[in-house]
Amino acid sequence: MPAAAARKPRVSEKTKERRQELRTALLSAAERAIAADGLSGLKARDLAAAVGCATGAIYNVFPDLDSLILEVNARTLAVFQAHLAGQSAANDGKRLTKQDATEQLVDLGLRYLDFATGNLMRWRALFDHRMPAGHAVPSWYTDLQRPLFGLVERAIRTLQPALSEKESMLLSRSLFSAVHGMVGLGLEEKLGTLPVATLKTQLAILIRAFAAGIAQRRG
Amino acid sequence: MPAAAARKPRVSEKTKERRQELRTALLSAAERAIAADGLSGLKARDLAAAVGCATGAIYNVFPDLDSLILEVNARTLAVFQAHLAGQSAANDGKRLTKQDATEQLVDLGLRYLDFATGNLMRWRALFDHRMPAGHAVPSWYTDLQRPLFGLVERAIRTLQPALSEKESMLLSRSLFSAVHGMVGLGLEEKLGTLPVATLKTQLAILIRAFAAGIAQRRG
Repeated sequence: MPAAAARKPRVSEKTKERRQELRTALLSAAERAIAADGLSGLKARDLAAAVGCATGAIYNVFPDLDSLILEVNARTLAVFQAHLAGQSAANDGKRLTKQDATEQLVDLGLRYLDFATGNLMRWRALFDHRMPAGHAVPSWYTDLQRPLFGLVERAIRTLQPALSEKESMLLSRSLFSAVHGMVGLGLEEKLGTLPVATLKTQLAILIRAFAAGIAQRRG
Repeated sequence: MPAAAARKPRVSEKTKERRQELRTALLSAAERAIAADGLSGLKARDLAAAVGCATGAIYNVFPDLDSLILEVNARTLAVFQAHLAGQSAANDGKRLTKQDATEQLVDLGLRYLDFATGNLMRWRALFDHRMPAGHAVPSWYTDLQRPLFGLVERAIRTLQPALSEKESMLLSRSLFSAVHGMVGLGLEEKLGTLPVATLKTQLAILIRAFAAGIAQRRG
C-alpha cells in the first residue's frame, strides 16, 4: 500500500542502527532478568534501567513486553532443542531397532529433565508465558516449537510402524507432554520437589512402559 | 505463652464477625476474578473495590495476596478432587481386576481433562501460583494435595502387586503428572489447542500403554 508507506516517517541509517542495538541490549537484559527471577518479576521499568534507556523507548523497538518475551523464549527454544537433539542427532540416518528407539526416547526424557533443572526459570518461562486475551501467538513462534515433538516422532514410528503420520505426530506430542508434566510437577516446590535421581528413574519407567505399550498396540 | 497473649489487643466479637465476613467476601471475589481472568489479572485494588473495602483492609484478614490465593486454590482442590474421585469411589471396597484398574486409570485421566476444560482458569491457578522466593508452601496446603495422587495408587498396585508402597506412590505421582502435562500442553493455545476428542483418545492410549507396561514389569 504505497499511501501507507508514504505516511511512514523516514528512519535514518543511524537511527536504525541505534534501534537494533537497543533491541539486542533489551533482549539480553530480559533474558538475564528471566533467568534470575522468572517471568513474573519482569518489568519494563527495570529493563529500561538495566540498558540505560527511558521506559517508553522500549516501545520504539518492541510493540509490547509480550513480543519481547516471545523473542527471549525463541532464543531459549533454540538452546532447548539443541540440548534435546544430542542422541537423536547421533542416530540420524542409522536404522533403529525397537530397543534403540526405546532408549532414544528415554535419553530424550532425561535430556529434557537435564535442561529444565539447569535452566529452571528460562524453561518455565517457555510454558508460563501466555499471550494477552485476544492476541494470537505469531506463526513464526508456533513454527519454532514444532521440531520439539519431531525429535520423538522417528522413535515412535520405529516402535509401531503401522501408525499413520498423523497418529505418530499426536503420540509424539503426547509423550513429550507427559514428560513435560513429570518434569514440571517433579520440580514443583508446592508438591514437594522430587530428588533428580528419583525423577530420572520415574521418567525411565514411564517412558519404557509407554514404549512397550505402543510397540504391542494393534490397529 | 500468657505474656504474649496479654500483649495482644482484645478483638471484640463484633470485630471478629466483621473480619470473618470480609474474609469470606474477599475469597469469593478472588475466586470469581481468577475464574474470569486467571491468576495474572488478580489485583488487591480490584478485590477491595469488588467487596467495597479499602485496599489496606485486605491485610487485616490475610497476611498477603499469596495467602488469599492459597485459600482460593484450596477450595478449587476440594472440587477438583471430588470430580476426580467419581469412578474410583464407586469401586471402593470392590476387588479390582487388572482390566478394572486400567479402566479406572483411564477414567481418572478423562475426568482430569473434563475438570480442566470446564474450569480452565481455576485449574491453571492451582499450578501457576508460586510462593514468593523464600516463602515455603504451608503444610496444610501440601497435605491437601496428597489425596490427588492417592486416587491413582490403588489401581497401580492392582496392576503390579509386587511394587513397594513407596514405588507405587512415586508411580502414581508420575502418572498423575504425565496426565497433567498432556492436558496442560493439549489445551495450551501456544502449541495449538488439540480438539478435546483427540486429547481424550491420546490420554486413553498413553494411560493404557503405561498400564500394560507396568503390569508386565519385573522387579
